[in-house]
Amino acid sequence: MEIFEYVKSVCSAAADSKSAMAGASAKTKNTVLARIAELLRGECDRITEANAIDLKNAEDNGIAPAMLDRLRLDSGRIDGIADSLSELIMLNDPIGSGTRTTRPNGLVIEHIRVPLGVVAIIYESRPNVTVDAAALCIKTGNACVLRGGKEAIETNRVLAQIMRRALADCGLPSDAVGLIDNTSREGSAALMKMRGLVDLLVPRGGAGLIRSVVDNATVPVIETGAGNCHIYIDESADIELGIKVALNAKMSRPSVCNAVETMLVHENIAADFLPRFTAALDGKALEIRGCERTRAIIGCAAAAEYDWATEYDDYILAVKVVSGTDEAIAHINRYNTGHSEAIITRDMANAEHFKREVDAAAVYVNASTRFTDGGEFGFGAELGISTQKLHARGPMGLDALTTGKYLITGDGQVR
Amino acid sequence: MEIFEYVKSVCSAAADSKSAMAGASAKTKNTVLARIAELLRGECDRITEANAIDLKNAEDNGIAPAMLDRLRLDSGRIDGIADSLSELIMLNDPIGSGTRTTRPNGLVIEHIRVPLGVVAIIYESRPNVTVDAAALCIKTGNACVLRGGKEAIETNRVLAQIMRRALADCGLPSDAVGLIDNTSREGSAALMKMRGLVDLLVPRGGAGLIRSVVDNATVPVIETGAGNCHIYIDESADIELGIKVALNAKMSRPSVCNAVETMLVHENIAADFLPRFTAALDGKALEIRGCERTRAIIGCAAAAEYDWATEYDDYILAVKVVSGTDEAIAHINRYNTGHSEAIITRDMANAEHFKREVDAAAVYVNASTRFTDGGEFGFGAELGISTQKLHARGPMGLDALTTGKYLITGDGQVR
Repeated sequence: MEIFEYVKSVCSAAADSKSAMAGASAKTKNTVLARIAELLRGECDRITEANAIDLKNAEDNGIAPAMLDRLRLDSGRIDGIADSLSELIMLNDPIGSGTRTTRPNGLVIEHIRVPLGVVAIIYESRPNVTVDAAALCIKTGNACVLRGGKEAIETNRVLAQIMRRALADCGLPSDAVGLIDNTSREGSAALMKMRGLVDLLVPRGGAGLIRSVVDNATVPVIETGAGNCHIYIDESADIELGIKVALNAKMSRPSVCNAVETMLVHENIAADFLPRFTAALDGKALEIRGCERTRAIIGCAAAAEYDWATEYDDYILAVKVVSGTDEAIAHINRYNTGHSEAIITRDMANAEHFKREVDAAAVYVNASTRFTDGGEFGFGAELGISTQKLHARGPMGLDALTTGKYLITGDGQVR
Repeated sequence: MEIFEYVKSVCSAAADSKSAMAGASAKTKNTVLARIAELLRGECDRITEANAIDLKNAEDNGIAPAMLDRLRLDSGRIDGIADSLSELIMLNDPIGSGTRTTRPNGLVIEHIRVPLGVVAIIYESRPNVTVDAAALCIKTGNACVLRGGKEAIETNRVLAQIMRRALADCGLPSDAVGLIDNTSREGSAALMKMRGLVDLLVPRGGAGLIRSVVDNATVPVIETGAGNCHIYIDESADIELGIKVALNAKMSRPSVCNAVETMLVHENIAADFLPRFTAALDGKALEIRGCERTRAIIGCAAAAEYDWATEYDDYILAVKVVSGTDEAIAHINRYNTGHSEAIITRDMANAEHFKREVDAAAVYVNASTRFTDGGEFGFGAELGISTQKLHARGPMGLDALTTGKYLITGDGQVR
């Protein structure tokens, strides 16, 4: 109960800052972002010292090297975060934009974009998310409550202090950036129940975190980042192009949500395509788990039901030979998480069919799923990739952090 | 468990029709709507006979006259429903509309509107909702699952049959309109848990239903219709205008969600305004429950905490004297449900302050809250009034029944 009250106090303080944040001009909000960038660069040593403690603790706890790398902040990465703030400053502020209509009875109806209010984010070990997520909230006039992973708590404390100071330096309430300085499960469970205080909760992390939030949250949630993505190599595919795109979709960065986990191959080209695909790996380590027909062509481990349903986030690829586009679509719609799906084909009818029938945020023809990203789509900034259909689907830019409000002005109209 | 399996079978059948519905042209969908209107008029007698059974059962169960009136369908009302289908036909189909951009790397990114998939609606006794809600879903290429109140089950069965026949007559799957022919609580509880089959659940009904859905649903939900609405009479108000608007907002149709429940009056005009307001009731029955300062001016019952937090939906009005716009805003933001709020004022600074600070879907200056309605806003159709901030806020038109999908076409781009 003590933890619950603590989390509530952080959320209440953030909620009390809503009005000041919503009323801040685009210029003021951009000044805060510039001030954060300046402080990040100026306090680089303090940040890396705190980060060194986190890294030491993580190493003592025997954390994997890939995880350690995600946790690390050096002066180059801090510069990178500061640079991305400068890019965010350049983007248009959506707040206050809208439409205006006059009804036949003389009522003037404006529909304008306004902040959501308090946005909470639960995330894992990457400390750059602390600044990225808070900066998107500041840009859109929202208050935010951050609950990062325990591995990064020392770093996050310093980063939150810097952002709170920047807000105060620019005349805005420092409580508009709140950090839950308690990394227990009870802390994140409490945050999920802050109905009336938290207007949106965005979980950024693995399937376990997302599932826990969906099951337990009473606050509005946008699910992000679950990516069991597929690439389907159609009978008519340009094989060289297919190999290039499939290799990129799987191998360029397997730990991210837009990487491919299962490759489906048309039965009429499988005997040609699959050996050329494995040869193109050129010695790079990739574990392939295939269906029986795949195994008859290339020797590999056997795929089980588990494999079709799993987001490996690793150098593992499930492979299935299918009878055609319809079976590929059926497989994808059964197992996918609504993220990104690709077809490699020269048959435009199959491409159209695939685009129409596959149920996902992003459907690709002859391109890598790795492009599902706010930056690659030209949004300039991204809070995450929504895999749900309500409010935001796909990369979430600034608009996803706003809602609408109708303002109606009359001179005594009654109904 | 048997009920759960039954509900699942209805939802699965609806889900199986998603692809056909999503692929239907605007013309085909409009033909279905026209066919429904034709069948409604042609089978008017069969509908009213079924409705007579519902009415008889309701009377036998001692249901209130207002409820009986909501349940009644006569030939005039059936004509009205058919007419509204003709209006729906005239509206633009949002499906397939969108934007198209080409990225520097040559990727063509289209962002198009697509149906949500399966939309479930849980509602109460009004059988016109059965047709209105299903028609909006058909127009937007969605399948729907309807779970109406037990009082209307005989009528709803006939209406669902008519709509299913119209779909089949036009070459679309009749399962795109599913009726949960089981009005137990277990049936509606099961519908809330159809994760993976139901893409959106819209509860239309009282606060109890909405709360139950928010607490129990694992499917995405849009909350609708909770309306604890306020009108604030500012010091500078045109008193005659204030009386006219307040009377309309409270008295014109107290049972609906956009009716006012609490009136706030500036202390400097309360002694003038309140007696003139009660005199203007002109003998119409309205129970006033006031704060102490209200009671000192006009004799009335005492308001308790309960009254500030309650949507009466009845000829009852809570009244509070406040010190000014700030107190009015604070009271509203504490007790409101995010629906519709009004200020009556001649002071444009106060009006701006009120519009900016009040947290609600619709904020009015010098007009009645009764205008929060899809028809009055010019949307032509409405599935309900959303009181949440995500996806849709305020009257929900056709767009609220769609989501976006990114279609990306390349020629081998990799990242």
